[in-house]
Amino acid sequence: MLLQVINPNSTAAMTDAIAATARGVAAVGTSVSAVTNTGAPASLQSHTDEALAVPGMLAAVAAGERAGVDGHVIACFGDPGLDAAREVARGPVVGIAEAAMHLATMLGRGFSVVTTLGRTRARAQELAVRYGMAEACRAVRACEVPVLELDGPGSAAEQRVLAECRAALAEDDADVIVLGCAGMADLTVRLGQRLGVPVVDGVTAATVLAQSLVTLGLATSTRQELAPLPADTLAALDRAPGTGAPDPRRATVPR
Amino acid sequence: MLLQVINPNSTAAMTDAIAATARGVAAVGTSVSAVTNTGAPASLQSHTDEALAVPGMLAAVAAGERAGVDGHVIACFGDPGLDAAREVARGPVVGIAEAAMHLATMLGRGFSVVTTLGRTRARAQELAVRYGMAEACRAVRACEVPVLELDGPGSAAEQRVLAECRAALAEDDADVIVLGCAGMADLTVRLGQRLGVPVVDGVTAATVLAQSLVTLGLATSTRQELAPLPADTLAALDRAPGTGAPDPRRATVPR
Amino acid sequence: MLLQVINPNSTAAMTDAIAATARGVAAVGTSVSAVTNTGAPASLQSHTDEALAVPGMLAAVAAGERAGVDGHVIACFGDPGLDAAREVARGPVVGIAEAAMHLATMLGRGFSVVTTLGRTRARAQELAVRYGMAEACRAVRACEVPVLELDGPGSAAEQRVLAECRAALAEDDADVIVLGCAGMADLTVRLGQRLGVPVVDGVTAATVLAQSLVTLGLATSTRQELAPLPADTLAALDRAPGTGAPDPRRATVPR
Amino acid sequence: MLLQVINPNSTAAMTDAIAATARGVAAVGTSVSAVTNTGAPASLQSHTDEALAVPGMLAAVAAGERAGVDGHVIACFGDPGLDAAREVARGPVVGIAEAAMHLATMLGRGFSVVTTLGRTRARAQELAVRYGMAEACRAVRACEVPVLELDGPGSAAEQRVLAECRAALAEDDADVIVLGCAGMADLTVRLGQRLGVPVVDGVTAATVLAQSLVTLGLATSTRQELAPLPADTLAALDRAPGTGAPDPRRATVPR
Amino acid sequence: MLLQVINPNSTAAMTDAIAATARGVAAVGTSVSAVTNTGAPASLQSHTDEALAVPGMLAAVAAGERAGVDGHVIACFGDPGLDAAREVARGPVVGIAEAAMHLATMLGRGFSVVTTLGRTRARAQELAVRYGMAEACRAVRACEVPVLELDGPGSAAEQRVLAECRAALAEDDADVIVLGCAGMADLTVRLGQRLGVPVVDGVTAATVLAQSLVTLGLATSTRQELAPLPADTLAALDRAPGTGAPDPRRATVPR
Amino acid sequence: MLLQVINPNSTAAMTDAIAATARGVAAVGTSVSAVTNTGAPASLQSHTDEALAVPGMLAAVAAGERAGVDGHVIACFGDPGLDAAREVARGPVVGIAEAAMHLATMLGRGFSVVTTLGRTRARAQELAVRYGMAEACRAVRACEVPVLELDGPGSAAEQRVLAECRAALAEDDADVIVLGCAGMADLTVRLGQRLGVPVVDGVTAATVLAQSLVTLGLATSTRQELAPLPADTLAALDRAPGTGAPDPRRATVPR
Repeated sequence: MLLQVINPNSTAAMTDAIAATARGVAAVGTSVSAVTNTGAPASLQSHTDEALAVPGMLAAVAAGERAGVDGHVIACFGDPGLDAAREVARGPVVGIAEAAMHLATMLGRGFSVVTTLGRTRARAQELAVRYGMAEACRAVRACEVPVLELDGPGSAAEQRVLAECRAALAEDDADVIVLGCAGMADLTVRLGQRLGVPVVDGVTAATVLAQSLVTLGLATSTRQELAPLPADTLAALDRAPGTGAPDPRRATVPR
Repeated sequence: MLLQVINPNSTAAMTDAIAATARGVAAVGTSVSAVTNTGAPASLQSHTDEALAVPGMLAAVAAGERAGVDGHVIACFGDPGLDAAREVARGPVVGIAEAAMHLATMLGRGFSVVTTLGRTRARAQELAVRYGMAEACRAVRACEVPVLELDGPGSAAEQRVLAECRAALAEDDADVIVLGCAGMADLTVRLGQRLGVPVVDGVTAATVLAQSLVTLGLATSTRQELAPLPADTLAALDRAPGTGAPDPRRATVPR
Repeated sequence: MLLQVINPNSTAAMTDAIAATARGVAAVGTSVSAVTNTGAPASLQSHTDEALAVPGMLAAVAAGERAGVDGHVIACFGDPGLDAAREVARGPVVGIAEAAMHLATMLGRGFSVVTTLGRTRARAQELAVRYGMAEACRAVRACEVPVLELDGPGSAAEQRVLAECRAALAEDDADVIVLGCAGMADLTVRLGQRLGVPVVDGVTAATVLAQSLVTLGLATSTRQELAPLPADTLAALDRAPGTGAPDPRRATVPR
Repeated sequence: MLLQVINPNSTAAMTDAIAATARGVAAVGTSVSAVTNTGAPASLQSHTDEALAVPGMLAAVAAGERAGVDGHVIACFGDPGLDAAREVARGPVVGIAEAAMHLATMLGRGFSVVTTLGRTRARAQELAVRYGMAEACRAVRACEVPVLELDGPGSAAEQRVLAECRAALAEDDADVIVLGCAGMADLTVRLGQRLGVPVVDGVTAATVLAQSLVTLGLATSTRQELAPLPADTLAALDRAPGTGAPDPRRATVPR
Repeated sequence: MLLQVINPNSTAAMTDAIAATARGVAAVGTSVSAVTNTGAPASLQSHTDEALAVPGMLAAVAAGERAGVDGHVIACFGDPGLDAAREVARGPVVGIAEAAMHLATMLGRGFSVVTTLGRTRARAQELAVRYGMAEACRAVRACEVPVLELDGPGSAAEQRVLAECRAALAEDDADVIVLGCAGMADLTVRLGQRLGVPVVDGVTAATVLAQSLVTLGLATSTRQELAPLPADTLAALDRAPGTGAPDPRRATVPR
Repeated sequence: MLLQVINPNSTAAMTDAIAATARGVAAVGTSVSAVTNTGAPASLQSHTDEALAVPGMLAAVAAGERAGVDGHVIACFGDPGLDAAREVARGPVVGIAEAAMHLATMLGRGFSVVTTLGRTRARAQELAVRYGMAEACRAVRACEVPVLELDGPGSAAEQRVLAECRAALAEDDADVIVLGCAGMADLTVRLGQRLGVPVVDGVTAATVLAQSLVTLGLATSTRQELAPLPADTLAALDRAPGTGAPDPRRATVPR
């Protein structure tokens, strides 16, 4: 199968990192293409950033559909445009916040989210309510490291994320940590080892969930709010600013 | 004071009707300017429609701010882009679903929303939860009349709206009716007379609420998620497709 | 229009302050009469105080109706007798806790209430749940200043209220402050300036909301629990201890 | 021990029936005195009725305290003045709605309330939420028989109650029936036999619960909202209209 | 009437203490038999412990039914097997967590549970949600004393329980303390005296509630999930490991 | 990796069907062993059935751990013993109700569960609340076909399941169907084709989710309630009635 991972922001280096992370957990027979939302802000750290990014991201979903993609991952922890993407795609669409939160509930009674900037906390809390996690999500914590300053293992950023995770375990009645940004994916394993609790990253979580849904032959319902879009809406999407078809160089060959 | 009512879709006739409705309830000393989101779909009847409309709507908010607007109304029942608009504006921003639902709770224990197409029902239900109305909102009902086919008093559309309102009163344990589309505003009084219960329209509700907030000197908090946007985000808004400054011809003079 | 603001307690000086506050935000064309519930306790600081105050307050509502009042404000943060008042009045009735909480949700994601005595906290929390604010109301805090010891700007009481507001902002994840007593209204502007966040006072909030409802032609539903009262119940109200018709000297002339 | 059962309305015949019902389930060694709230409406069928009844009912609680009562039952399904009564009494106070709903949850997953007039439904639903029964209380149904027209076994009123109970079992996913009026107590056993499900009456439920709390040496907490009332509030109660000390003729001798 | 109190664990000394506690609050005419679940773990401190204990406990319920028991108490704060026990018994079955939480709500707005080991906290929280106590249950606190190390008045264990209760009152907004283990019953009175708030023990609470239900002629509904079990299931229960009929020596004679 | 699918009942034919279903969706490199809980009831259709089945099921988990299983699936829609199984296993454990409900939320706003007997409905509803699906789970419907009478495609049982699914779509505001019994797995594809909506079966859902968790290196947290069990508890498990090590013949070789 072919999964498309969409980086809703315009930072190509982040797309590369996300793609590598996703491919690292894909099953034999699953290819992962990755696409950058080139017309979007460099990172999505406000409601306005998200609003500006969504039209291009939806265009990427539509382009992916035309290219034969079987399932989509939206790789930003605000799950921007998730409902709209489900209208556009025939195959399943999974957001990384959604994926991480759902898997976290199977690993312990409560989890805390550790995210980047404080101003994104409320969005994560709103998603937790939307996904039925009002009780399971014990807290959303910010380490106040901007998305684009997240660095890999060994960095000062990692130290701040680690410190916030430790605070979560000490204070929040949490059994599990959910990382609240696609840019934290490469810290997952090290954080898990240091903390001694499950640490769930959304990019990997959404990749295996999208793959799971495609494997089961499941796609978004087309009833009610998710009924197919009229042709003029789809046409409008093509005129939206942002990306075109997924970059073919990014598509992996089946392993 | 100067209020700006934004029609998030691109149908100018609808803007005119909304403007007239809003002006009809504004206090002496309150001017209402109205603006059409010219780059948006003709009506917003899906999540994708909303996503495509929001960047232009936010640009209208920003343009209104530059023109000295004191408060904003978002005149679409999905309250699209409300959180983002609050980041952009200094003054208060009120959505019409929000306004209608809040006022409805002061008139009875429960209300039902009567809206246009069934595919928009879930968005209204999601907003009800967001606004704390999970218990008060007894049902969201669709009369399956598209937004642009809503006609004024005496039309077949009015009959279908009326029938759905009657069904709500008979079956939903509702004390109050909330009209779920800006395009239904001109039916409000007649429906109220026929039904014998309070009928709340969002455009008028949001206008008086925005006016109320400005009167009290209240504006959106700037803490946490609603902190002022960085300059580059505001600059990106200016490049968004859609409207410019509010059309000066639309501004009423103080009565 | 004519609004009647009812002070449910028997302290006339507080009625005067409340009346002045309400008139300060009323629109041109809106008159505000104010009435003291002369048979009630001097302040309402327990469930028993509220119970003793309600019959007289309802008599004031009934007297106001006979005097042609268009809408009523119940100016005590416990919103005592609100449901009953809605049975008695033809026009809308708005409680100050209700009004402040609803407006607060339009200014930020969460608010904290700062009230007088700790023993009134649970009532405010119960109202928050009733109004759908279980999630939005982050905390109810008491500054342990009795109602009748609240003093104006510059007093020690103001310092304690200010300190509790600051604690709310530091600890409660609140974006907005709601003042939990009608007697705090004159502190609102100064607190807002010092705190740098929206501070919502219930008296002004309820006044503009009652005015808004009357402007929209909206009044309490008469369905189900709010059906008109039988004549003997209304007659019993006339025999209730407390106030008579609103004091005509208190009615302002239209500005 | 001595329990006082307060009939919050002024219909003495109803007091007699309630007293007999309560005594029928009291343990050996428990005396039950019953008191009529003589200044109250003949039946409590609106919010206003309740408001008018509560001061006298609280005076009865205070008088009972002076007479050495160990625990109180408020025998009206709206549980009027329950929080205030807990401020006034040293011993425990139990409302009949509260008692019936709590016991019902130990007999099945869900219950429906069958009450008198439709206008009281919302109060019962509000109490269900207050008591944590939002999920367990499947519906509140009215048989539209006024309180004072409820008659004993064999009456037309019984037929209407029975019919509504049957509808509840057929439609509400209910395992248990809760009778929503003190005046239905004498129907309990017959309804249970006919329906084949547990039927819980509040008067008996509250009597055994109040007795249980006294037996365990438990009384209302005096922390926070339930702290002892100041002397002037207690003095004001004595001046409230309504009943005096419990009628000594009503007190049973220990069996 | 004859009540059976089942100690779901295999520690006979604990059964004796529980039996004495239950008999101390039973009414004249109520006999209490007590039974040890001999095949179960010595104490139930994990989900696995509970799972291993339940079959034997259900066999004890079945044996009690054959011996003419009128009502059952499950004397472990996890309320293990409560739903299943209600399928097995004709008479009412009450769990001690259930009983204590319900009674606590009649004594104050909020309660905290003080239990033994931290690993049992989540089970108590889950029960609080199940019983509608999500709002009333302010916290579940562990004093980290294992069940079998709980000692009577004057012990170090009592000091730790007392300290945790004090922390609850200082930090949790609680009006009432609920003791979270059957083994704490003999501390109840002393803790209440020292803390000055109601302290509710589940064993006594469940005993008086089971007695109350039997007095009212109420038993578990037999509708839907609680319909009588087929014969083969009942036969399987007889083969379950654990206890047989209640030890006749344990039955008290009516007082 | 090696997954163990546990059939909590003792019907070996059902184990075979479940194993085939699970293997049909496992990835290349994933082996699936299946085990029958030989000491359990033939099907689990009551709380008592579940209670009797859990000890043996936990013994199977423990045996699987000793045999090197990487993750476990509990293949009964009541998710019996799930918390306990997570104490016993090092690797992840997924229940089929849990899995199906979580995946269903990614395919539409609301789902209905169609299960076997009405007496199991309440358990499914309780699980929905536990998993945060109170809003998403629109209804749990029973087709009143016992587990062991479920037959494959073309049977009368299939017709009844299909009819109940159709009723769910017509009446429940559901976008997705969740099949509420492991025995319905072979109907999934046909039902999906006939209904035109996503139909989620728990066995396949739990298999891909357990596989996903193992792929991500995630296992149950060992904090708090899920801390490792003491040795004597594990020893007690070995003495529990039921199954031994997974039958080696059932393990598939990697594909």
